[in-house]
Amino acid sequence: MALTLYWGSGSPYSWRVLLALEHKRLSYESQLLHFDKQEHQSHEMLKMNPRGRVPVLKDGDYVVFESVAVLYYLDVKYPDAPIFGQSPEEAGVIMRVICEFQTYAESSLQKIVSAIFSDEVAHSLEELTDAMHVVGREARTIEGRLSKELWIVGAGYSAADMVIFPWIQLLRRALNKAAAAELGARFLPMETNYPALARWIGRIESLPGYAKTYPPHWREH
Amino acid sequence: MALTLYWGSGSPYSWRVLLALEHKRLSYESQLLHFDKQEHQSHEMLKMNPRGRVPVLKDGDYVVFESVAVLYYLDVKYPDAPIFGQSPEEAGVIMRVICEFQTYAESSLQKIVSAIFSDEVAHSLEELTDAMHVVGREARTIEGRLSKELWIVGAGYSAADMVIFPWIQLLRRALNKAAAAELGARFLPMETNYPALARWIGRIESLPGYAKTYPPHWREH
Repeated sequence: MALTLYWGSGSPYSWRVLLALEHKRLSYESQLLHFDKQEHQSHEMLKMNPRGRVPVLKDGDYVVFESVAVLYYLDVKYPDAPIFGQSPEEAGVIMRVICEFQTYAESSLQKIVSAIFSDEVAHSLEELTDAMHVVGREARTIEGRLSKELWIVGAGYSAADMVIFPWIQLLRRALNKAAAAELGARFLPMETNYPALARWIGRIESLPGYAKTYPPHWREH
Repeated sequence: MALTLYWGSGSPYSWRVLLALEHKRLSYESQLLHFDKQEHQSHEMLKMNPRGRVPVLKDGDYVVFESVAVLYYLDVKYPDAPIFGQSPEEAGVIMRVICEFQTYAESSLQKIVSAIFSDEVAHSLEELTDAMHVVGREARTIEGRLSKELWIVGAGYSAADMVIFPWIQLLRRALNKAAAAELGARFLPMETNYPALARWIGRIESLPGYAKTYPPHWREH
């Protein structure tokens, strides 16, 4: 079967799937779509995912989207280098941590990042500060896990790392903008505030194939 | 291993797990917690889930929470009567439909149901009407699936049905309140507006063990 991934540069959801494909050493055709040209909303893309969102994975004639579902599909179909654990117990914790991240962190992260990139921090500083508190609390929980283990769940790099890592990178990039200085003051530098998380980022950055997953437009600016 | 489920009456998240346990015909100890007595926030419960939420499943010494993670754990540990499909392709679609429901429907459902039960419909009618449009759109997609198949994904009752069903029941219960008449006008009766969904509800209601999953306090009022 030939794998094709349709993705967008800087989409944390796309990044998750790229990390999984590289980890599993699967060969795939990479179809980078340009959001500014609305390529993710083309007729061809809407036929595969009517919501017009990426990532979309095509495996032969089969299509799957929603990043966590893509990770899950890849793991059931290509179990080598498992990313949902080696036992039912590990599988449960990995999925639990993913669900917790989605339920308790993701909407605050979206709010913060989108306000910074659309230059609207000043308009809603109070709301964004609250969102940063939520993110800080969740980050401390993850920091706690990573101060005991190399990876977020158990002894191996898993889907939990792949789900969370792109958001942390996107948050760091956003908080480094001048307009976000106040917002980021208690989060950055991560080496001081979240040392175990900072080491974990370094660990993922040195994985084989990582460079291929890095958002291309981030290299430019 | 002895299974114990800690749950709350009327919690759609708890209901999902009860449906899975009954479908898999697993024997379990049922620990119904009383939200009004804050039993889900007891010291014992917070030790298992620091967020103080239900459902929480204990399997011997192992603890798992977050409803989708509990479903997933149960399926990996007790694969008989699989609920995440019979093939990687089916697994991917089931997880995709679950992720879509969580991403695109759940927050609107929460908003509507909590406004109705806390008697605040009049204060935010416009916002709730928008939320009902979102829910209506997602329900039409599911109606489309169910007009072709007996279950939401493919030929078998799956985790996708278990995730969505309790929310539909909770929504119907809420929309039946007098204060929600206007809000519910285009949704109820489901037999007319969503006939395939209505038949699917009946199908789940007649599954063996269903009565054991029904929220006890719903029988009273």
